[in-house]
Amino acid sequence: MRVTVLGVGLIGGSVGMAARNHLGANVVGYDPNPGAAGEALERGALDDVAGDVAAACKDAELVVCASPVAGLGDLVAEALIATDESVAITDVGSVKGELVARHGPEPRFIGGHPLAGAETEGVGGARADLFEGARWFLTPTSDTEGVLYDRVQRFASDLGAKPQAIEADEHDRLMAAVSQLPHVIANLLVERAATSLGREGAPEVGPSFRDATRVAGSNPAIWPDIFEQNSDALADEVEALAGRLGELASMLRSGERAGIEAWHGQAAESRRGLFEAQLEGGPLEEVRVLVENRPGVLAELALALGKAGVNIEDMALHPAADMRSGAVSVFVAGQEEASRTAEIVAALGHQAVRVPR
Amino acid sequence: MRVTVLGVGLIGGSVGMAARNHLGANVVGYDPNPGAAGEALERGALDDVAGDVAAACKDAELVVCASPVAGLGDLVAEALIATDESVAITDVGSVKGELVARHGPEPRFIGGHPLAGAETEGVGGARADLFEGARWFLTPTSDTEGVLYDRVQRFASDLGAKPQAIEADEHDRLMAAVSQLPHVIANLLVERAATSLGREGAPEVGPSFRDATRVAGSNPAIWPDIFEQNSDALADEVEALAGRLGELASMLRSGERAGIEAWHGQAAESRRGLFEAQLEGGPLEEVRVLVENRPGVLAELALALGKAGVNIEDMALHPAADMRSGAVSVFVAGQEEASRTAEIVAALGHQAVRVPR
Repeated sequence: MRVTVLGVGLIGGSVGMAARNHLGANVVGYDPNPGAAGEALERGALDDVAGDVAAACKDAELVVCASPVAGLGDLVAEALIATDESVAITDVGSVKGELVARHGPEPRFIGGHPLAGAETEGVGGARADLFEGARWFLTPTSDTEGVLYDRVQRFASDLGAKPQAIEADEHDRLMAAVSQLPHVIANLLVERAATSLGREGAPEVGPSFRDATRVAGSNPAIWPDIFEQNSDALADEVEALAGRLGELASMLRSGERAGIEAWHGQAAESRRGLFEAQLEGGPLEEVRVLVENRPGVLAELALALGKAGVNIEDMALHPAADMRSGAVSVFVAGQEEASRTAEIVAALGHQAVRVPR
Repeated sequence: MRVTVLGVGLIGGSVGMAARNHLGANVVGYDPNPGAAGEALERGALDDVAGDVAAACKDAELVVCASPVAGLGDLVAEALIATDESVAITDVGSVKGELVARHGPEPRFIGGHPLAGAETEGVGGARADLFEGARWFLTPTSDTEGVLYDRVQRFASDLGAKPQAIEADEHDRLMAAVSQLPHVIANLLVERAATSLGREGAPEVGPSFRDATRVAGSNPAIWPDIFEQNSDALADEVEALAGRLGELASMLRSGERAGIEAWHGQAAESRRGLFEAQLEGGPLEEVRVLVENRPGVLAELALALGKAGVNIEDMALHPAADMRSGAVSVFVAGQEEASRTAEIVAALGHQAVRVPR
């Protein structure tokens, strides 16, 4: 199989590697940055580097456009021009609406978005197994050519991913809700806190603020782009959230205790539904371990759990204000694992507390 | 020194232990649940258990009220009646406005709030060093008796904490912004996502959604109480956030690219200001490590870093959809530590990627 990759960052490079490893494909790449293309060749992501889009697309059966989102519309257009009607064109961008509105009527273009990595981390982070088990959204339209769609979805599947067809607009709403909105909120939470706190640092009030704001202002080379590209769907989500906040403020002011309790309980349910459907062993249980915050203590803990075959599904650190002591929350699947975790921790001489749900 | 602790959960028990250990105090406790009081005695948090509030307060120089927030107003009132004018009364509740409005005119009551642990986890989690390095807010008023204030703040300091005076209302605004608002947001984010996703689980789009919603619906025995107790300050914060979301939606819809970039960049600044002021070595750097998600791999990683003396300041897991592989983000202080981290990780045979800020 002859595959072309246009743009060889983390995702494009990984597509190349995976296609070569899993499919024995011949992969030709092009990147406007010759250094990136050279590195991709060196790292085994490509068989050959071409000097421009048209040369890269020569003899391709499938062209994967993997530039940053802002440039995808034009790149897909170039790829369509450079290829004949037997060639499928796809992309890996995290926003689909505008792109599909522009190129969806073209039977050969099938939008795509693998949920793996981030777009701009460079080919240095590429790996052949990046898509193993990952969801890979595809956005066919009523104009899409069936044979070419089949080629793209088979390709995603052969790379180890789980292809799933979705409407472009629905995809964008989904990403707005689960990916972009948390970034927006992180930004606004630090903004509010900075206003409340002035020049003081954040007091250590537990991990919720730290966790919720970890991505505040992250990677300025990519997020403003994504916000802009998905601005309509994101603005809808942002407004819906603002509306719910307004309702909640009224509930708080009028002291509707039962309503607040019901709402809080429903949130616990929803989170379980979103994250724990497929967990073997049962819903996540939290075991909080009180430890000194010295190098090595986390290792000791994780090592003992690893040796006993307990898998850590999630983890949160709660450093104390002085950074000398703190707690580690270890999340494991099911009551039984939680009990074993608590025993193992106690045997290490640490205090373990089961946190009620 | 004779200290009385009313309510011996995690905080009350830890106050007792710390007062006995650090001050050689004689500590008498009372808890409406005799089992809790007995356990506190057994664990060395108390010298004696009394049968009621009045008996517990006999001969006390300082009374610490440590019940759940909802009961603090009445408990402080009881303690005031049970003691004479030479005795200082304080509390450890996470909401201060209403309590100080009710008892602040009393010269002997000084509201308090140590930022350590959570109120209702039980004496089983109590420890003598819980307050080591922790901020301990105190809310004196213009009516407060100076000698008694000094006694309370010296007590907090002797327990290892850093006492800090603050207006009750300012305290509540601060806690609304950095503690309660993230919980509210976690609830609303899962609510929005559940609406968008229907019955499907959350696709793995990176750790931001997982991190931001970890506390959704957490501990229903305590959070609705806290929301209710601090409803005014929290509603103010909620409304302010809703307003900012509205402004952001307009900015998104009108495509104000420069505005969005500036806002995003400011958020990065604000987070650094809030969290990294006191970090030795420099601002947090993220090193992302690509690993198999098998038991033991986290241990191996943390152990190698621990051996090399690299302290992990923060950490986030990014499991892949199939839970077989994934990435671990390790946050360390400063460029130098980040380079060492990347080297150590590479020596273990894992791929390490420095994530741009």
